[in-house]
Parts: sequence; structure tokens; C-alpha cells
Amino acid sequence: MRNRKGLAVLMRTPMRGAANRRQLLAATSPLPRSNGASSSGGFQDGDDSCKVSLTDVKEWMRQSISISPDKFESLDANLEEFSKGYLSLSVERRRELLFALARDYDVNRTRVRELMQQYLKIEFSRIEEGNGVLDELLLAACFRMERNLRDALKPMYSVFFERLNAHPGGLKILAVLRADLLLVMEKENMPSLRALDSYLKEKLITWLSPATLQLHQITWDDPASLLEKIVAYEAVHPIRSLHDLRRRLSIGRRCFGYFHPAIPGEPLIFIEVALLKGVAKAIQEVLWDDPPILEEEATCALFYSISSTQPGLSCINLGKFLIKRVIELVRRDIPNIVVFATLSPIPGYRKWLLSKLASQLKLANMEENNIKLSETCSSSTFKERLLLPDEERSICDSAKGLFEGKSAIEILEKLLTSLNNEWTRSDGLLGTLKSPLMRLCARYLLNEKKRGKALDPVANFHLQNGATLENINWMADPSEKGIIQSFGIMVNYVYRLEGIEENAQSYFSTGYITASWSVLQYLEKPKEADDAE
Amino acid sequence: MRNRKGLAVLMRTPMRGAANRRQLLAATSPLPRSNGASSSGGFQDGDDSCKVSLTDVKEWMRQSISISPDKFESLDANLEEFSKGYLSLSVERRRELLFALARDYDVNRTRVRELMQQYLKIEFSRIEEGNGVLDELLLAACFRMERNLRDALKPMYSVFFERLNAHPGGLKILAVLRADLLLVMEKENMPSLRALDSYLKEKLITWLSPATLQLHQITWDDPASLLEKIVAYEAVHPIRSLHDLRRRLSIGRRCFGYFHPAIPGEPLIFIEVALLKGVAKAIQEVLWDDPPILEEEATCALFYSISSTQPGLSCINLGKFLIKRVIELVRRDIPNIVVFATLSPIPGYRKWLLSKLASQLKLANMEENNIKLSETCSSSTFKERLLLPDEERSICDSAKGLFEGKSAIEILEKLLTSLNNEWTRSDGLLGTLKSPLMRLCARYLLNEKKRGKALDPVANFHLQNGATLENINWMADPSEKGIIQSFGIMVNYVYRLEGIEENAQSYFSTGYITASWSVLQYLEKPKEADDAE
Repeated sequence: MRNRKGLAVLMRTPMRGAANRRQLLAATSPLPRSNGASSSGGFQDGDDSCKVSLTDVKEWMRQSISISPDKFESLDANLEEFSKGYLSLSVERRRELLFALARDYDVNRTRVRELMQQYLKIEFSRIEEGNGVLDELLLAACFRMERNLRDALKPMYSVFFERLNAHPGGLKILAVLRADLLLVMEKENMPSLRALDSYLKEKLITWLSPATLQLHQITWDDPASLLEKIVAYEAVHPIRSLHDLRRRLSIGRRCFGYFHPAIPGEPLIFIEVALLKGVAKAIQEVLWDDPPILEEEATCALFYSISSTQPGLSCINLGKFLIKRVIELVRRDIPNIVVFATLSPIPGYRKWLLSKLASQLKLANMEENNIKLSETCSSSTFKERLLLPDEERSICDSAKGLFEGKSAIEILEKLLTSLNNEWTRSDGLLGTLKSPLMRLCARYLLNEKKRGKALDPVANFHLQNGATLENINWMADPSEKGIIQSFGIMVNYVYRLEGIEENAQSYFSTGYITASWSVLQYLEKPKEADDAE
Repeated sequence: MRNRKGLAVLMRTPMRGAANRRQLLAATSPLPRSNGASSSGGFQDGDDSCKVSLTDVKEWMRQSISISPDKFESLDANLEEFSKGYLSLSVERRRELLFALARDYDVNRTRVRELMQQYLKIEFSRIEEGNGVLDELLLAACFRMERNLRDALKPMYSVFFERLNAHPGGLKILAVLRADLLLVMEKENMPSLRALDSYLKEKLITWLSPATLQLHQITWDDPASLLEKIVAYEAVHPIRSLHDLRRRLSIGRRCFGYFHPAIPGEPLIFIEVALLKGVAKAIQEVLWDDPPILEEEATCALFYSISSTQPGLSCINLGKFLIKRVIELVRRDIPNIVVFATLSPIPGYRKWLLSKLASQLKLANMEENNIKLSETCSSSTFKERLLLPDEERSICDSAKGLFEGKSAIEILEKLLTSLNNEWTRSDGLLGTLKSPLMRLCARYLLNEKKRGKALDPVANFHLQNGATLENINWMADPSEKGIIQSFGIMVNYVYRLEGIEENAQSYFSTGYITASWSVLQYLEKPKEADDAE
């Protein structure tokens, strides 16, 4: 009895996952600065004072690139030393190493130019003519030169990547390397780093081909070492306790991971699915429906969380294939499921809206202080009417006494950035802000684009996979994280099997977003019909 | 009791494996001509009359190459149709399709030339100078053009290979395609086919990186569908019955396979290992040591069979990594094992010796009929003394009455090519032939090279992996297959861990073959010491 209680306490003990990207990175690539001794090697910690110097690691890298391929033991030893050494370097040293890799192991341009000059001397006209013996010889020479050119155009770091990929544990190191590279590029976006990243990304895409990935249903019977990773990497709705974890793996729930043979024991990406009677419009319905409904009564598979575990594999769309395979699998196993939908966060909404508000305030400020004449043309390219007249009025009304003389935009900005999100604690403010926040959210999702694609990364992900933007749900995630990302609003994207390819295709070619009427009506020219939601 | 007997009979019922390459190919890529309906599709059989026409399959191929990547369902459907369709084509139609692939989806040379001319206009000197903003821009342009050039230099069939690789079941189709290509190239070795093969091979090497392959010990507990494949693919010592199969998977034996996630349920290559008290010098000791010795008494792990299941993966050295990993695994699991050796066939010996004998006979014949003067210079570049005087004498003696007046070479040739290998049934002849056949075998293995490497493919395989040529064993495989390959002779290659890399390295760079004294002495200048073996 006592043990049981002990277990129950354990099951409910709060757990902390490494929820954000930086933390994940630290977990996969231990830095001496942050966590003492490196977990993957026996090296001493310390920044510049650690036993492994940048020079050593660079030398192992050089050896790994230049060594003859038949010296496989030395090659293996060098790759091993490099891997351990790299992981024990500080952020700054890694940055230096990446710069050296990009700069010193680039394309050999002298050789490329020589080969090109030779190639251009070929009398192509003679090949294209036909079928004599000479043409055969010429064609053979042509193939040979093209092959040499392909080789010469490969940067020298290509060999390094290929060798690491063939080495046990090397794929993981490549993922860490790319994660570091992406961090460096956030600050220093140099052409040579971009070229390094683009080359590495291209390689990773072919090595992580969906046919190589294994779909595995993660259950409570899986090893603790794997389950622990699920807790650590869950990036959408943090797992609070063992009890919460078990809930997500038992009746009415599914968790599927994509595994690669070269990175055993942890999924590259995993998805959590809830089997429900209908499309859930709030995350509480998913996380806390205790007891769950009977699986045979479920009609909807709701994808409520997708987490990728390797920041270094960003922009390699593993999720698309994962969703596709999970839909196939669930359809086959549970024929009563007819709707496949998500309940998704809108990670970019708040940031976008606050920057919009800020720029409007700035413009208003400039207008007031300097150029009065622009008052007449209030709908210029710079200044826009973010709020409807009704919304402005009720915002000003709701805040009377507090922000006297301020504009609606100013009040809205102050409310949304208030300490501890005070506005969420007042029913009055919630009622007032619902209408503008929902309408602007629809606008953000449907109209705000970057290079023709939805600005919001989660929206872009599901839309490019062929989903429909189905519902926008008010206070669907009232957790602190939910408020901070998107004022608690969440979205249902629906995967309708018959429309997937068409949607993906039209989104891809024209940026057109397929959305339900309930979402589209937010963008209709307003008369007085803003309560329709 | 009756059931038990029934089972025993079943266990000993002879089985037929698809032992040779052609049979394997037919098994992996069912041709309507050979086995009726295709096993992988619902197509009707028949050669040109089958429902799927070459035109259809070509069209699916064209679509698979040209379709936009976001139309993933159509792409999948096309790849699926192509795969089924290709497998249902006759040999001749497949040949036509491969020619079309090589010719019509080659490099776009017009585009390559345009890009090269642009590239050569870049002022490289300005990039190399240093660190101004302009150089950055120039460098960025340079990277962009190099990337475009790399893309342009890819033949158009590259996309096809990549898409097939990403498609479930596609890797297997690529292996079948290459197997067919290799067969076509045996007769028609055109530059465009060679270029296609070399490109495909390069791709397969990166996709079949050893880190992607999973080592699995195959046991009697594995599914019958897997064990059936072991029987079918065992290429060295055919498995005769279920009893024989179980023997190879139970105490004192190991069988390890390399599996790729994209080709589930069958190994790409597998190796059979016997745990013995010493290095076995005859295959009978391995196949029929009933009861086996206790594993804890074993000191030698003998690799007695390596079979690759995909002829389309030839020249992709999976065996090297397999042996390396198996050695590591066995060392860890059974510390009493200290010797790692093989008992290997010599597949090219008989063919080589018979062609040597034939050319010597032809030379002798020419000499006799035409130019008498050459009798004085019997050791010219063309004519050589294959047999030692002693050997000649005893061959002539042993055959007296049968081949009166014939030369020793002529008698040897007649004996070795006699119907049903009659010579193996006479102790006298066995005694006489042992000495020359063993000596010439050592010469074949040590001295006969092709491009600096051992002519014998099995020798080349183990030598490049770093093994030592340890023993040549007389009548080590007296089966019909053993006699036909190498007059019953087999070789022990030994993997000495401390010498592996050095051996591999010197063999790679100079072609030097590390051999034991017992083998080397066969090549010593003869006095009268030829019985030393």
C-alpha cells in the first residue's frame, strides 16, 4: 500500500523537459561551459583551458578529410577523436572551427576552371551528330570530364560529411554541427557559411530519405531511456509528470516516432495523437479528458503535438512524411476514424501583432509631432487601420479611467504587454479583446506572407502538406506559453484525404491558402457582423 | 511419434537454393518469361503481349522525372506504377528502357556550357584578395553559380534515382535496375551505359552507408520468410535441408546479416561463422562436425560463407564493413575466440588454369607446324614452362597407355577437363596432380593480377580488407562445385587484428599480398622440395 502511494507520488512529480531550442541544443551537444564535463568523452571541462584544443580538433578534421580511404582504422580513429573533441569545444571555438571548415575546405576553383576550359574545347557538335566510332570515344571522354567536373565542384568538406555519415554516430554529429552553424548564421550570415549550410542540408536530405526512416509507435513498454527523450524533447505541450506521460501513451492516445538506424534510441521527430469524438477546440479537452473515451467511439484523430528533436535537421521536412504515414496507419488500424485534424499553436502571432502595433504607434507619434498634413491621408502605405471602429470604441470604453486620452492602439498595446498578462484575468477585457484578436489572427494566418508562403511557421508546415485552415479557437491554450505565443488562440488544420494533393499544389504554386468559411469570414469587409464566430 | 518422424523427414528433405547470380536475379526481379505471372504486381504474363507496354513504363518513368515535387501523391503513384511495370517487362524491353534512360535523361550539355561560360567570366582574383564588401558579393555569386553548375552537371536520371530512393520499395527497384544494367553491359559496354552505371553506383554507395545498415544475428527464431531467403541466397555452400539450415544457426555457429530499413525482411549480405578449435582446412569439418564442440572451447571464428543477395549492389563493398562489425561483436561476446579466419573458395582458379593450358597448347601446336626455330627459345614471352620437370615426368608416367605420345600439358588438360572429373576418383592421379595444382594455385593467387589487384575476386575481397593469405588446402571442398571452381582447393585467409590496416594499406597502394611462409614457399625456385606442403 505504501509503495503504491509512493509510486503515485512519483508519477505525479513535476518533470522538466528541455522545451526550447537552445536547451535542446545544449542537451545534444554538451558544452563544457554550460554543464561541466562533457558527457560524450573523458575530457576535462573548462573553456580555453580544456585539454582538447581547437588546434587538435582542427587537425583531426584535416586528417579526416585528407586521409586515404583504405586507412580505415586511422580514419575511424580520427573521426572518433573529432566527434568527441568537437562536442567538448566551447561555443566560440566551434564557431571558429565552422569558419575554418567553410573557408579552408571550399571548392578548389583553380582545378574547376582548368577542367572547364578543357571541357569547353570538346566538339559537342560531333557527338550530337550520331553513331560513328569516333563519336563514341568523344562521348566517353565527355562523360569522364563531366564526372571529374562534378567531383571538382564538390567543396572539400563534402568528403568530411560523407565520411562522418558513414561513421557510427557521425550522423548525429552532423546534426549538431548544422545546429551550431544555424546559430552562428543568425548573427553572421556570410556567403561561405550559407554555402556550407546549403551543402550540408542537401546532403542530410538525401541521407534522411523517408524510406530510411522507421516508424515506431512509442508506448509505455518502451525503454525509459527513450521515454526520457520524449519528455525532454516535447516542444509543444510540456509533459508535467510520469502520469501525464503515461496518459499520452495509453488508451485513446498514440505517439509515433521516426527513427533512423544511425541515431538509435531516440526519434528524429515524433507526433502525439488523441482519438476523440470530434475535433477538439481547446488543448484542455485533449490533455485532461480523464477518463478517455472508448477508442471504438472515436471518429477524429487529433494531432496535438509534433516535436523535432534535432535542431540541426531544421528545414528537412520529416514531419510531412511522418503525418502521411501516421494517417495511413491510423486509417488501417482504426477504421472508425474519419477526420484527421490538428490542434496547433500559432507561434508567430503575438510577435507579429506587437510589432504591427508598435509601428502604428510610432507612425502616429511622428504624425503628431512633425507632419500634420498626413492626417488627411490616414490610410497611406505606412499607416493602416488595424482596428475596426467598433473595436476601437469598446477598447477605449473598457479601459476608461486607466488610460485616459490614449488611442485604442496604445491601450491595446499596453494591455497585451501588461505584466503577467493581467488582461486574461478580467472577463470584461477578455470579452472586449476577443473580437480584434481573433480577426487579426485570421488576417495574420491568411494574409501575412513571406516569399509567398504563410509567415507563421506552423501554418506554413501544415499548408504545404495539404491541410485546410479550419478553425481559429479562442482561449484554446490559456497556459502562460499559449498566451505568450498567440494570446491563447489555437488553430485546427484539417487533413482531408481527397484534397491534400490539390491544396498542397495550389499553396506551392500560388501561395493560395485553403480555409473554411468560418475563418474566411473574419476577413470580410465589416458591417456590424463581428460576433459571428 | 509419427509426427516426429514426419518432422524429421521434412527437416532432411533436400532444398534448392538459387545458387547462381542469374537465378538470384530472376528471383528478385520476376520476369514474365521465366516464371509466369509477376509476383509483385497483378499484371498478366507474356512477353510483348503483356498488358503493360514499354511505352507505358517509359511514360511512368518520364512522369516520375518531370513531375513537380509537391505533387507527391501523383509522384508516388507514378513511381509505384513504374516499379510494377518495370518488373513485368521482358529482358529485352528492360534493355530498351535502360538505353532510353541513359540516352534521353543525360546531362543537359547546352545548359552546362552556358553556365560554364558565365562562371569563367567571374574575376576570381578579386575574391581571393580579401575582405571588402564587394568581394563578399562576388563570393556569394560564385557559390550560387557553383551550386547551379553542380545541379546542371547532374544527369536528369539523377532525380529519378533520388525519387525512387525516397519511395517505399524504391531502393530494391534501384538494385534490380542496376543488376539488369550490369547484365546488359556484359554484352554492350557503351559509354552512356557505363556513365549511367557509374552514377547509380555512386548514389547507392552513399545511400547504403554502413551507419544505415543494421547488423542482425539470424537465428532459428527468425521468421520463415527470412530464413527462406537465407536458403535461396546462400551462394557458397548450398543449404541442403532444413536440418542443415538449423545446424548453421545453432550451437557453435553464427549467422549475421546486414539489413537496410528500406529493404525489410531480407539481408543485403550475410555471413556464416563456425566456432571451432582451430582453423578448419576442409569444408567438411565445418559443415558436418556433428555434434559441435562446446562454444567455450572454441578459439577460432571461421567465416565459411559470405553471400550477397542483391546482384545490383555489386562493387559496393558491404562485406568489408560486415566482417569488421562481426569480428568486433564476436570478440566482445566470446572472449575465448582469438583467431578470425575464413575458409574460402577460389572461384577463378580453374578457369584461369584451363585458359593457360589452352594457350600453351596452341603455342606448342603453332611451333610444331610452322616455325621450328623457336624451339631453341622455349621461354619466350608467350611460351612459358607451367610445369616443373618432376611434375611433367610424373604426369606422363601416371597416364601411360592412355595418352601415348602426348605432352604433359596436353595430358593435364585432358585429365582436368575429363567427363565427371574422373581424375578425382583415382588416388594415383590425385597424388600426381596435387603438386602442380597446389603450386599453380599459389601462383594464381599471389602473382596473377588485374590492374594491380589479385585476379581472383574472393582473394581481392579479403586482401583489400586486410587479411593474410594463410593456407592453401588440398581437397578442402571435394563437392562437384568445389572441383569445378578450383579442383577442390580452398584457402584460409586470416584476419590478424594488429595487421589489418597495414595489410590493407600496402595491398591498396602497391598490390603487395601478405602471405604466410607455407604459401610463399610454393613460389620458391624449385630444387627438389615440392612435397613440403
